[in-house]
Amino acid sequence: METVRFGEVLDRVKKALDSTMAFWIQHSHDEDHGGFFTCLGCDGTLYDDLKYIWLQGRQVWMYCRLYCELPRFHKPEIIDAALKGGDFILKHAQVFPPEPKCAFVTTRDGRPGSVQRTLFSEAFVVMGLSELGRATGLLHYTKAAWKLMKHIVHWVRIDSSGLGKPALSGSVRHSAMAVPMILLCLIEQLEKSTNKDSGAPDTSTDGVGHGMEEDHGLDLRELGQWCEDQILLHVQRDGKAVLEHVSPEGAELSGSFGRLQNPGHAMEAGWFLLLRAAQRGDSAMIHKTMSSFVLGPLESGWDEKYGGLFYFLDVDGHSPTQLEWCMKLWWPHCEALVALLTAYMHERKPELLDRFFMVFDYTMSHFPDKKHGEWFGYLDRQGQQTHDFKGGPFKGCFHVPRALYLCETMLEQLLEELGPSA
Amino acid sequence: METVRFGEVLDRVKKALDSTMAFWIQHSHDEDHGGFFTCLGCDGTLYDDLKYIWLQGRQVWMYCRLYCELPRFHKPEIIDAALKGGDFILKHAQVFPPEPKCAFVTTRDGRPGSVQRTLFSEAFVVMGLSELGRATGLLHYTKAAWKLMKHIVHWVRIDSSGLGKPALSGSVRHSAMAVPMILLCLIEQLEKSTNKDSGAPDTSTDGVGHGMEEDHGLDLRELGQWCEDQILLHVQRDGKAVLEHVSPEGAELSGSFGRLQNPGHAMEAGWFLLLRAAQRGDSAMIHKTMSSFVLGPLESGWDEKYGGLFYFLDVDGHSPTQLEWCMKLWWPHCEALVALLTAYMHERKPELLDRFFMVFDYTMSHFPDKKHGEWFGYLDRQGQQTHDFKGGPFKGCFHVPRALYLCETMLEQLLEELGPSA
Repeated sequence: METVRFGEVLDRVKKALDSTMAFWIQHSHDEDHGGFFTCLGCDGTLYDDLKYIWLQGRQVWMYCRLYCELPRFHKPEIIDAALKGGDFILKHAQVFPPEPKCAFVTTRDGRPGSVQRTLFSEAFVVMGLSELGRATGLLHYTKAAWKLMKHIVHWVRIDSSGLGKPALSGSVRHSAMAVPMILLCLIEQLEKSTNKDSGAPDTSTDGVGHGMEEDHGLDLRELGQWCEDQILLHVQRDGKAVLEHVSPEGAELSGSFGRLQNPGHAMEAGWFLLLRAAQRGDSAMIHKTMSSFVLGPLESGWDEKYGGLFYFLDVDGHSPTQLEWCMKLWWPHCEALVALLTAYMHERKPELLDRFFMVFDYTMSHFPDKKHGEWFGYLDRQGQQTHDFKGGPFKGCFHVPRALYLCETMLEQLLEELGPSA
Repeated sequence: METVRFGEVLDRVKKALDSTMAFWIQHSHDEDHGGFFTCLGCDGTLYDDLKYIWLQGRQVWMYCRLYCELPRFHKPEIIDAALKGGDFILKHAQVFPPEPKCAFVTTRDGRPGSVQRTLFSEAFVVMGLSELGRATGLLHYTKAAWKLMKHIVHWVRIDSSGLGKPALSGSVRHSAMAVPMILLCLIEQLEKSTNKDSGAPDTSTDGVGHGMEEDHGLDLRELGQWCEDQILLHVQRDGKAVLEHVSPEGAELSGSFGRLQNPGHAMEAGWFLLLRAAQRGDSAMIHKTMSSFVLGPLESGWDEKYGGLFYFLDVDGHSPTQLEWCMKLWWPHCEALVALLTAYMHERKPELLDRFFMVFDYTMSHFPDKKHGEWFGYLDRQGQQTHDFKGGPFKGCFHVPRALYLCETMLEQLLEELGPSA
């Protein structure tokens, strides 16, 4: 029975991953300047040629991860496009080189258009370049990733003034969950890039990544523990709520800022934490994560009336001030799928599987575009499409293929365990 | 017939204005620190105590304008609250005094929380303080308004580096319609404050505002003409579209940024332009404005399927990248009401009146809260409420009462012209 359903889901997941990647490969490559277009209409038509640096880094990462991990994507056209993306980033991401701060967006030919006073552009650059180094064995990408990572860690733990936000007497001292979360993601990446089973081809230069950690004075183990501790501060209300912003000491903050929840984000943190806990066999942490970061956010975030996950919530039930709070976005559904299946891999509870299938059914019946491939990104509360494009300033080649790739891998493993169907 | 409908509408407008003002007077005054709370739930309950400077300036302005212009609001409790708001602004709006840059938001007790790299906080401070000077005859408010106005004009026309945005080689040189529009609004305000029929009580100090214009080296007449010229650059596609961003020379810009339309914003510019054109008896400009800034945006912005005005549009019909593009917000409807009635005052075409009644009916059946007074601010495309609060970071005591006050004044005039009903 399960074998049948797993097989059916795996089949749909694989096909969705293939058509998603085909969409990006066909429509997003800028052959003239390198890098990727992301403002792509329903059928792949370009409606804006700006280059968003978050999305450049993410697409390089995605191409390289698939190139390394799934044989059917180990193709020259994929690594070539990733290399052109990596070179675009190296050449154009920094606003005022050698200053590390990266642009949020550049023109098609790489001139910086705007800069955010946060660290996310830089984080996705690290993610992309590090995986590109792993996939190609070319050290200069790996080195650039480590160098920028060091700046990020400095901004987070020592001095954030380099991000450009003025220090104000009324600004609220807080921990934003997004920060330790993205750091955990980068740690996973950098650890992978230093592993011996690197994705680099056999012809790779000796010593990819080896010694990088020491060279750059970063203790990834200590940093990872710090991130986990930081994320756990966001669990409030006796473990029943994950709040996006808390005080640096882990106390609730007042106002809408302090009450904000983002269920998809909590579940994304959930699967990062699960993977780390599983790696070290920490079953207490697995259990806690499953309850607070997977099942809790799913329960509070699921719209009982129309289905789907809300984008934002206020823990006390006020209307969130974000205008889009009740919209259904593609990416929280991606994160929920990964979180629920990861949870099931580590605790074989039927309710986890039920929930996974519930989210899978909603997702697959609402987001994919059967005609042109890839997924629509934005629905209203009722589940009607509000935007017809496949990519935009915040939606690129990342959440959909990452979730599908991770689900594919887990489903393959589950099917293997179950053996041939009766 | 018209007399009956005008009378009915006037009655509803007056009652709506009274209940809206009663809501703010009852719930928004911070007796301890001065200034106004704006994060007010459905029934007036405070859900956040932050002070948004845009909304502080706007509420001071609204209180003073009503205090000066409508006898039933000429009450001590109104001017007292406005004075406390003005003093809060004088004491706390500037982030690093004597630098002119103002905060976007402060804590309840006035410590700056964040700063935008735009000029809107400053603009609403000028608006509020200037009208407070006019209402009270107290020169220090008037002087502070003129002084800050001079900085704003410097940022707009000489050097914008004081706003804090880095100069980037890939940032698009452009004119944003919001800028000359807000300047026009401030010009109207400052002109009013220098008029002899000031709203100041008879006991006012001699010379309120007189000589201010010269003292501060601002030529309001020249500035006003410049603003009108700038706004007209935004009329594109043979007069059929108003675009939010164009090149400084008035050429269309590429991408989503260049194609963006905001129908409510265009209509707001419309009534500013109509008032100025009418003042100087410029019938050609009245005609042009009516077509490009009133009827055009109403036609392209009106949702034929569900009624109401879209928030954003892309002139080529792509999905705007703003997630909230198809939501129905209270303020574009306020601006449409004022624009259509102002247009009708200057050209008595039945179609203008038909459109006014169409927008009025949609607005009054969707936004007002019959139970607790004031209006809801945010609906989905279908017209269902998405947020239950009356005020938030961007909705305060401004668009609703301003539109109602202006419509009341115009409807009174129309009824007077028509004479007693048959």
